[in-house]
Amino acid sequence: MKYAAPIQALVDELRRLPGVGERSARRLAFHLLRQPAADVLRLADALRAATTDVRECATCHDLTDVDPCRTCRDDGRDRGVVCVVEEPQDVRSIERTGEYRGLYHVLHGALSPVRGVGPEQLRLASLVTRLRGGGVREVIAATNPNVEGEATALYLGRILQPLGLSVTRVALGLPSGTSLDHVDEVTMARALSGRRPA
Amino acid sequence: MKYAAPIQALVDELRRLPGVGERSARRLAFHLLRQPAADVLRLADALRAATTDVRECATCHDLTDVDPCRTCRDDGRDRGVVCVVEEPQDVRSIERTGEYRGLYHVLHGALSPVRGVGPEQLRLASLVTRLRGGGVREVIAATNPNVEGEATALYLGRILQPLGLSVTRVALGLPSGTSLDHVDEVTMARALSGRRPA
Repeated sequence: MKYAAPIQALVDELRRLPGVGERSARRLAFHLLRQPAADVLRLADALRAATTDVRECATCHDLTDVDPCRTCRDDGRDRGVVCVVEEPQDVRSIERTGEYRGLYHVLHGALSPVRGVGPEQLRLASLVTRLRGGGVREVIAATNPNVEGEATALYLGRILQPLGLSVTRVALGLPSGTSLDHVDEVTMARALSGRRPA
Repeated sequence: MKYAAPIQALVDELRRLPGVGERSARRLAFHLLRQPAADVLRLADALRAATTDVRECATCHDLTDVDPCRTCRDDGRDRGVVCVVEEPQDVRSIERTGEYRGLYHVLHGALSPVRGVGPEQLRLASLVTRLRGGGVREVIAATNPNVEGEATALYLGRILQPLGLSVTRVALGLPSGTSLDHVDEVTMARALSGRRPA
């Protein structure tokens, strides 16, 4: 016995979500079928709006509902610093610190020969164009502390050097609130090599 | 910094799903924002269809896109047996065995004084009406093997006895493929008390 067609369609679509297997998809579907229609429709509408009302900022490529995005049009920010991140979520991670007042540039990925991601697949050409426009004195490479993020940071340094820009890399070291015996050896090695006067 | 409104709305709605916290909701939202619009819209449409095209079968209360549902209108099934389950998913669990050819009745819950679920909240009145209609010789109580399911099975026995119907309970015992030292004591006790000639 198959599910009724609309139930099966819902299970199939939920299954496409990351981390959702056949069982969870069924559980989610029947959960949703028990909810008031208004609640389910709000989720449907939010999904639809995400496809129509969210775009990339033409300047920094962050996801936004207005172009230029609120960060790019904020006159209170330091336009001399651009922080380069891999994904839109990374902008929020940095904003949450409340410590950064510069602008951003979202690459939408990191270099990865294995996954076939080269410079053309990232928003790199537009970064170079943007920086050539002048006014920026420092570029912070805040890509992820993994192989692909490191490769991307190195690549950024190489292509931006001819523009006479200072490229910095976020510090790699011990995460706050951890203890030494919970830290992996790569992180520990980086914390040692990045040591500074106490 | 808040997310752009349509992104925040999507995160908020995803957070309402069971087992999805703030972090997973953000991850899901940005995953969806990276997908082709057509894929996201298919999910939105499936959700919308679930609210419009899925209803309860007026006879057995299973979720269906046609009323009466395909099981209730299937002439090949034994109309003398009605299997009572708590939730629509339970119908599929039983159908998957391929061992059952009778009809169903979905209660949409189980008795639970703690959660304020009394007989009026379940599809019990319609079960009695249905059985009074005649033609049914056996009712199988296939509610869950937990406190609420057991209470519901007992209650079924009590209200159906006056109708002169035989009410049976699915066997409670060792799950197939397990080993004795993995079985909890309640299951083991039930397996012992339910023992039959080998």
